[in-house]
Amino acid sequence: MAARRQIRLGLSMRYLGYHAAAWRHPLADPGAASNYRHFLYIAQAAEAAKFDMVFLADGIGIRTKDEPPGALCRSHQTAELEPLTLLSALAPMTSRIGLVSTASTTYNEPFHIARKWASLDHISGGRAGWNIVTSWSQAEAWNFNRDEHLDYETRYDRAAEFVEVVKGLWDSWEADAMLHDKESGLFFNPDRLHVLNHKGTHFKVRGPLSVKRTPQGRPILVQAGASEQGLEIAARSAEVVYSASHDVDSARDYYQNLKSRLAKHGRDWDHMKIMPGITLFIGRTEAEAREKYDLLNALVAPEIGLSYLYGQLGDLRGHDLDGPVPDPPGGPVKSIAKNLLALARKDNLTIRQLYTTIAAGFGGRILVGTPEQIVDDMEAWVEAGAADGFNICPPVLPLGLDEFVELVMPELRRRGMFRTEYEGATLRENLGVPMPPNRHTTARGA
Amino acid sequence: MAARRQIRLGLSMRYLGYHAAAWRHPLADPGAASNYRHFLYIAQAAEAAKFDMVFLADGIGIRTKDEPPGALCRSHQTAELEPLTLLSALAPMTSRIGLVSTASTTYNEPFHIARKWASLDHISGGRAGWNIVTSWSQAEAWNFNRDEHLDYETRYDRAAEFVEVVKGLWDSWEADAMLHDKESGLFFNPDRLHVLNHKGTHFKVRGPLSVKRTPQGRPILVQAGASEQGLEIAARSAEVVYSASHDVDSARDYYQNLKSRLAKHGRDWDHMKIMPGITLFIGRTEAEAREKYDLLNALVAPEIGLSYLYGQLGDLRGHDLDGPVPDPPGGPVKSIAKNLLALARKDNLTIRQLYTTIAAGFGGRILVGTPEQIVDDMEAWVEAGAADGFNICPPVLPLGLDEFVELVMPELRRRGMFRTEYEGATLRENLGVPMPPNRHTTARGA
Repeated sequence: MAARRQIRLGLSMRYLGYHAAAWRHPLADPGAASNYRHFLYIAQAAEAAKFDMVFLADGIGIRTKDEPPGALCRSHQTAELEPLTLLSALAPMTSRIGLVSTASTTYNEPFHIARKWASLDHISGGRAGWNIVTSWSQAEAWNFNRDEHLDYETRYDRAAEFVEVVKGLWDSWEADAMLHDKESGLFFNPDRLHVLNHKGTHFKVRGPLSVKRTPQGRPILVQAGASEQGLEIAARSAEVVYSASHDVDSARDYYQNLKSRLAKHGRDWDHMKIMPGITLFIGRTEAEAREKYDLLNALVAPEIGLSYLYGQLGDLRGHDLDGPVPDPPGGPVKSIAKNLLALARKDNLTIRQLYTTIAAGFGGRILVGTPEQIVDDMEAWVEAGAADGFNICPPVLPLGLDEFVELVMPELRRRGMFRTEYEGATLRENLGVPMPPNRHTTARGA
Repeated sequence: MAARRQIRLGLSMRYLGYHAAAWRHPLADPGAASNYRHFLYIAQAAEAAKFDMVFLADGIGIRTKDEPPGALCRSHQTAELEPLTLLSALAPMTSRIGLVSTASTTYNEPFHIARKWASLDHISGGRAGWNIVTSWSQAEAWNFNRDEHLDYETRYDRAAEFVEVVKGLWDSWEADAMLHDKESGLFFNPDRLHVLNHKGTHFKVRGPLSVKRTPQGRPILVQAGASEQGLEIAARSAEVVYSASHDVDSARDYYQNLKSRLAKHGRDWDHMKIMPGITLFIGRTEAEAREKYDLLNALVAPEIGLSYLYGQLGDLRGHDLDGPVPDPPGGPVKSIAKNLLALARKDNLTIRQLYTTIAAGFGGRILVGTPEQIVDDMEAWVEAGAADGFNICPPVLPLGLDEFVELVMPELRRRGMFRTEYEGATLRENLGVPMPPNRHTTARGA
């Protein structure tokens, strides 16, 4: 079996799953997104199946708008647990699986993020990961003393500096800093503790960090940016990238573009793992898969469905949901509105069909099929140089995870595409990305 | 047994204990403050003994200065785990004990604090507590984009507003907000979700919080302020107060002063628990207790000891440590320096003896004696109206906790002063402080 065909797998577990109607599924517990035991089951099941990591996306506030009215109170994407507290609480109840979540560089301070993720890395024995994002929504700005979110340039400029400060803080203590010499009374070697003294455009952070060097050297860095600045942050620092391509050609372009940037930062092609997101509807037959897909889609309240189109195409409440998608008055303005309309026109979609393509997987890529079809697709993406693995975003949790483990995992393993046992103890070891050297240790030539 | 004599007990577990030389104790594991398993042992042992809560004090950075040189690298109060991640990781491994930590109102945002503590309250099943502090140290300011820490007035003004915003966010969701009605498609009742829309001097926070109402209504609020503004924040909101009195008279004055402020906020005298901190050296005989005290004190490196005097009395490295405490050149300026000198003069203390009084309990109250003497002292404080319980700050952990449980607990229970079983499931129930009503539920007259 060729090593290059071994894929990495992450499991996204936010809310009750990625389908807008997940909570209405007959087998779903609607309150589970606020229930620790729900996530405990998922993390332990994902670990038993040898997933590389579980992942919690995040937003700092309720992003869903009540447009059209009645959408918000029908959405399960409203109440949840906070990701860092949740991952920490999962750490002692798991032993091998990576624990990754998003934290915004826009409304956080680097010292807090460096400290909390370093602490999670210690508590979990080297399984922490941080997904670096910027916050773009008005709803989040309003929770953090602002009337408007920051403009794109400022946000990404701040993010790039933020990441460098955090990496600097993580190098505060060299690996051999601790002496713990009861006899001499020296707790640590002062030559091995370093003050960062960062003074930049957005931050002044002296350091040092009050957490010693972590089991992974530093937590795994994750990025999902598709913009130029996002790609550069990823190329410089990210070890995992969640991409959002809907087809293999654009996925390959993205993959090749991003990986070709690694060399100029002195990084290896293989030391970044690109993992497109995917929402799977799995059946033993195509018909069964389609039935599962249709069952959930029938549960999407029109208010929720129309809320996905509201920002781009306006209030469509007066229209026949099973009729054609009307042009917005004055024509589509934003490119995302043009793309939506093009999608509708191409396949002659009704309003309901259009919003279903978004509602079924929170806007991400959807695949409906048998295990063989799904693994064929995954294999084709890997062979095409479009993916190193996949970030599985089940429509309903834990149901979609259980189905993946029962139906898809055996097929992946039959083809030699996925591990049967963890290779290492840390997330870094399992991903196969090397421990970064401490800059000060390197500078000493040690 | 009179209910009023039943005391509350907290266990402070920061670093390796409160003694400056804790890590050099023959039975101490010097690296334990960075080791989750150390805290797991402590939390589980404290729960087995029915402590009300474990507590983590906090500072956002390494506060210890290297003055005189050589002090910092001898201090164990340098590397640690971050409190929120640590408490979350302890939540699923315990079931009844309260989980309380400090978070600064100076270098945090209310939305983050409200969200993380609400999440911890859900994960722990109603056992979270937040100790509200302001940050006063230069070392912390330097980690958060500032050259100087905020002045006292601004800090406390910000703190008071911060607490009100957090309480407002915690009332976002009424207790009966969730409908989870799969049939109708209503996830929650929109009349039961409330937008805070706070616009104040320091913060603009719209809300609502993305975490539903917590098992305790809201986490337990803790305060430790002794200043006028601190007392007012406590009187308005705190359910637990950590006080720092060194003698029963000042403790009683503090207690009576603070509790007499409750009525004007419509609060009950008994719904605030005042718990002075205390570091205990416990022996089966007085001589044994004194031996334990002396053993640790002999391990205090002079550099560490002198660092406690440096800020007030200057660099005393040239002086005989076993000679008298010299007047600082030009005389003592700050009141804290005058108090230190007065303490030294009163008992004719040497330099070494003076710094030992600080080093032995991180500046807090120290008691050296037999279980009977210690419980006599506790009982006297409770009878005097100076305490509702105590925050135990062992000199070395877990040793000092094990000794407390083995030697002091039986004496407390013999006198009917401490529980043998938890009264309730939540920290609030065990403390005996009522669930606060949701302001919106009250406004509806429900």
